[in-house]
Amino acid sequence: MKNKQKVYLKTNSHKKLLELAESPYDLTAAGALQHQGRLSEYVCFSKYFSLFYSTQMVNDEVLDALQNLADECKLVQQFVQMKEGAVSNTIEGVESENRQVLHTASRDIFGDLPKEPHASSLAKKEMDKLKIFLDELDGGVVCNALGEDFNTLIHVGIGGSDLGPRSVFEALRPFGRKGRNVHFISNVDPDDAAAILKKVDLSRCLVSIVSKSGTTLETLTNENLVRQAFAEAGLDPTRHFLAVTGQGSPMDDPGKYLRSFYMYDYIGGRYSTSSMVGGVMLGFYLGYDGIVDFLRGAAHVDTEAEEKDIRSNPALLMAMLGIWNHNYLNMSTLAVLPYSQALHRFPAHLQQCDMESNGKATSRNGRRVDWNTGPVVWGEPGTNGQHAFYQLLHQGTEVVPCEFIGFRRSQYEQDITIESTTSQQKLLANLLAQSVALAAGQANQNPNKFFPGNRPNSILLGERLTPEVMGGLLALYEAKIVFQGFAWNINSFDQEGVQLGKKLASRFLSGMQASENHEQSFEKRLLKITEIM
Amino acid sequence: MKNKQKVYLKTNSHKKLLELAESPYDLTAAGALQHQGRLSEYVCFSKYFSLFYSTQMVNDEVLDALQNLADECKLVQQFVQMKEGAVSNTIEGVESENRQVLHTASRDIFGDLPKEPHASSLAKKEMDKLKIFLDELDGGVVCNALGEDFNTLIHVGIGGSDLGPRSVFEALRPFGRKGRNVHFISNVDPDDAAAILKKVDLSRCLVSIVSKSGTTLETLTNENLVRQAFAEAGLDPTRHFLAVTGQGSPMDDPGKYLRSFYMYDYIGGRYSTSSMVGGVMLGFYLGYDGIVDFLRGAAHVDTEAEEKDIRSNPALLMAMLGIWNHNYLNMSTLAVLPYSQALHRFPAHLQQCDMESNGKATSRNGRRVDWNTGPVVWGEPGTNGQHAFYQLLHQGTEVVPCEFIGFRRSQYEQDITIESTTSQQKLLANLLAQSVALAAGQANQNPNKFFPGNRPNSILLGERLTPEVMGGLLALYEAKIVFQGFAWNINSFDQEGVQLGKKLASRFLSGMQASENHEQSFEKRLLKITEIM
Repeated sequence: MKNKQKVYLKTNSHKKLLELAESPYDLTAAGALQHQGRLSEYVCFSKYFSLFYSTQMVNDEVLDALQNLADECKLVQQFVQMKEGAVSNTIEGVESENRQVLHTASRDIFGDLPKEPHASSLAKKEMDKLKIFLDELDGGVVCNALGEDFNTLIHVGIGGSDLGPRSVFEALRPFGRKGRNVHFISNVDPDDAAAILKKVDLSRCLVSIVSKSGTTLETLTNENLVRQAFAEAGLDPTRHFLAVTGQGSPMDDPGKYLRSFYMYDYIGGRYSTSSMVGGVMLGFYLGYDGIVDFLRGAAHVDTEAEEKDIRSNPALLMAMLGIWNHNYLNMSTLAVLPYSQALHRFPAHLQQCDMESNGKATSRNGRRVDWNTGPVVWGEPGTNGQHAFYQLLHQGTEVVPCEFIGFRRSQYEQDITIESTTSQQKLLANLLAQSVALAAGQANQNPNKFFPGNRPNSILLGERLTPEVMGGLLALYEAKIVFQGFAWNINSFDQEGVQLGKKLASRFLSGMQASENHEQSFEKRLLKITEIM
Repeated sequence: MKNKQKVYLKTNSHKKLLELAESPYDLTAAGALQHQGRLSEYVCFSKYFSLFYSTQMVNDEVLDALQNLADECKLVQQFVQMKEGAVSNTIEGVESENRQVLHTASRDIFGDLPKEPHASSLAKKEMDKLKIFLDELDGGVVCNALGEDFNTLIHVGIGGSDLGPRSVFEALRPFGRKGRNVHFISNVDPDDAAAILKKVDLSRCLVSIVSKSGTTLETLTNENLVRQAFAEAGLDPTRHFLAVTGQGSPMDDPGKYLRSFYMYDYIGGRYSTSSMVGGVMLGFYLGYDGIVDFLRGAAHVDTEAEEKDIRSNPALLMAMLGIWNHNYLNMSTLAVLPYSQALHRFPAHLQQCDMESNGKATSRNGRRVDWNTGPVVWGEPGTNGQHAFYQLLHQGTEVVPCEFIGFRRSQYEQDITIESTTSQQKLLANLLAQSVALAAGQANQNPNKFFPGNRPNSILLGERLTPEVMGGLLALYEAKIVFQGFAWNINSFDQEGVQLGKKLASRFLSGMQASENHEQSFEKRLLKITEIM
C-alpha cells in the first residue's frame, strides 16, 4: 500500500483500548441504557439502515479510541485505494496473488466518474450483454427446441459462486417475475443434484454453470451430472447451458454454451455476488430492472463507506465494535441474527465471506500475527433462534456478541392482527426485547432465573427488504469485513487455507478407481492419506 | 438423583486431566497419526456408525482419565436412571420443573421390557392412533370435501417443534411416499407463512399445528394466518387441521381439529422429534413403516448408550472428547460438518438441542458453576463448507474442533464417474483429506501456506442415510448432549434463559395497538422496553 499504516499492536489507540477494556461500560448498572440520552445518541444513520448500538459495552471514550484506531490504521484511506484499483490482494516478500480487489467496480456503474473506470466499463459491458440476453428470453428469441420459454434456472456453483447468490435469491423471492423459479446445485454429494433433477422439467430449464477458473472439481462434476440428465432426456444442451467464468477459461467455449458471461480475476468468489456470478441468476429471476436496483443499493453503500467518522459510517462502526468485542473483550464468536425469514441463508453467506476473508494468521508483512483475527461467525433467523440456541446466549458460560437485523415492514405485507398487534409488530417487539434483555440482564434470587447481562449487541434496522436494500446490506457487510482485515493487517482476499485439503483429496483420488468404492476399509484409506502427505 | 455423583471439579480425574492438558497429544509430530496402530485402534464401532477418533489430541492416558471422569460422574448410571423415569429435570433448593425426562420412552416400544412401561405404553397408544389415521388417509376415509386425498402436510411449529422434524424431513426426502410433500411454517415473521401459502393448493393440504402447551405465541399466530387463508378459500378447517399437543391443552379440542395427537410433559421440545411432534409429519411422509424404522434406529442407539466403556459407546465417547476439547484444551465452539447434503439442516437442530440443553450456568445443586458448560455449536455441509469457512478452520487464530459425519453410499445412488472416480468417492476423499489436514497440518517456508495443525476432529461414518440410521443419528447426539450435561452437573432439560425476552416482548406488546406499527420511533420503543424491565 502507498500509505504505510501503523501495525495494529503498535498503535496508540491499541494501548488505550487495552486500558479501557479493563472496565468496559457496564450495561447492567441501574439506568445504564438510558444514561445521557444514550438510546438516541448511539444510533448511526444511513440511507437504508440505522444502526442502534446503545446495547454495546462502549462509551464515548471507547468510541473515540476506536475512531483513533480506524484513523491510525488508515482504514477508510485503504478502502478508497482498494476501490481505485490498488493491488490489495498481496503479502510482502512471499509468493501471493498480487491482484487488485474490485468487487466494488461491479456496481460502480451509475455515476460518470467511476473509481476504477476500466473495471467498471468491463462490468457495464457484461450488464449490456445480460440485458440483451434477458430481452431475447422475453422476446422468445432464446427458447427451447419446441419454441417454449424457460421458466427455471438451475444455478450450479459452490462456495462463493453459491452462498452469496443463493442467500440473495432466498431474500428476494417475493420479487421474482411471474412463473420464474431458480434452483441451486452445489455439493459434490450426488444426492444434491439428484434431488433437484427429480423435480424440474429439464426442457424448460436454463442451466448456469458458475466457476471463475472453469476448473472447480465440484462444479464440473455437477455439470456432468446435469448434462447426463439432458442427454437421457434427448435435449440439446447448447440450447440450455450458460457459462459464468473468467474470459479465456476452459469453460469459455461457445461450442458448449449458449452464452458466456465473464467475471474477472480481481473479484474473489466470496465477493462476487454483484458480478455476473449473482447477476445472471438475479437477472433471470428479478428481470433486468431488479438487478439494476440491487446494484444501485450496493453502489450507494460503497460510497457511504468512504466516510471517516465511525459514528456516521455503519460499516466502519460495525467493524470497530466487532474488534472491541473480539480483541479487547475476548469474545471468540459473532452471532448474526436476522429477524426476517427471508434472510435465513444470509448468516451462512456472511460466515463464508467473513471467515474465509479474515480467518488468517499471516500479516501483510509476511509475519505470523500475534493478535486475534476473524471470529467464528454463525446465526439463524429470529424468532426461531429464540426457541433454540438463545438459552446459551442469555445464560451460557460463553459470551456471544450479537448483530440483529430487522425491518419495519414485511415483504409480502400479508399480515394478521391477533390480540391487537400484527405479526410484524410481534417480530420487532421480540427483536427489541432480546436486545435489551441480553444487554441489561436481570437479577433474581433464584440462580436459575438470573440473567447476567453484558451480552453486547446492536440492531441494524431497515424499512423493507427490497432488491435495492438487499444490495445495500450485502455491500455493508462486505465493507465491514474489509475494514476489519485492514485493521488486523491481513490479506482478506486470498484463501491459502483451503489448498491443503484440496491437494490431498486430489492426490488421493488420482490413485483410485470407481470400482474401489465400497471395498477398501476406511482405516486403510485414512492411512493412505496420512502417507501421501 | 439417587446416586450422588462427585462434583465435576472435585473428581480425581479432573485434576489428572488438567495435568494432561499441559501437553496434549501432538498430532503434528512426525508419524503421530500412524503411531502404534492408532488409526485402527482409535475407532469405536456401533451398529450404524463407526467413530474414527485418531485425529483427536488424545492418547491412552487421556482416554483412561476421560473414562474415570465418566465413571466418577456416574454418567451411564444417570442415563439409565433417566430412561427408567428418574426426575432428571430438576434443580435442588429452587423452584424448578421437577419432571421426568423420557424422550427415550417414545421409542422404547419394541421390546417386551420397556425401561419405563407407563410412558412407553402411552407412546404406543399414540402410534396406534397414528396408524389408524394413516390407514384412513390411504383408504380415502379421511379426505377433503371433494373426496380427494391429501398430498401435502403443512407442519406449523417453532423451536423444538420445528428444527428436529424439519432436519429429519430434509434428511429423508428420498424416502417419501410418492406424491406426498411437507412444508414447514415456524417464524412469526408473516413472510414465512405467506411464502408457503402462495405455493400450495390448500384444498389438498393437511395442517398440523404443533405446540405442547397449546399457547406458543408464534405457532398460534401462524395457525390463525393459515386458518384465515382456509376461510378465504371457502374450505372447512375441521377437515384439514390436526393438533399435536399436550392432553388437555387449549388445543386439545375436537371442535377445531380433525384429530389430536398427544405429547407429554416429560418430553422437552428439543428432544421431541421421536414423539408425535415428528411422528405425525414423518408418518404422513414416509408411511407408517418408515416412522417405525426411524424409531427402531433411535431405540437401538439408546440401548448402545448404556455401555460403560467409553471406547465402546460412541455417544459417551463423543461427549468425553467434547469435554476434553472444551474444558481442558479451551476451545469454545464445536463445528458439526456432515458430508451429506441431506443433513444440511441437522447442524441447526443440534445447535438448538445442544445449546438450549447445556448453555447453562447453574448447577443442579443450585449454585453458579465455576467451569465452562456447553460450547457454541454450528456447521454446514461439506464439501460446501470447504469453499467457505474452512479457511479459518485451517489457518485462523480460533481453534475449532470438528465432528465430521459421512456415509459410504449415497441416498439416491445416482452417481457419475469422472476422471475414474464417482462423486461419492470424491465426497469421502474430501472428508478424509480435511480430517487429516486439520490434524496434521503442514510445514511451509511461506508463512501464508503454513498449516499449524492440531485442530482436533473425528469422523462418524455410516453406511447409508436411511430412516433407521437417521433415528440412530438423532439418538446418538441426544445421548451425547445428555452425558455432557450430567458431567457438568447442570439441568439439561429446562430453558429458563428464554423466559426473560419472552416476558419483555409480551409486556411490551400488551400495551400496543396494531395501528402503532410505523409511527413510533424505534428509539422510543427501545426506551419503553428498558423502562418496563
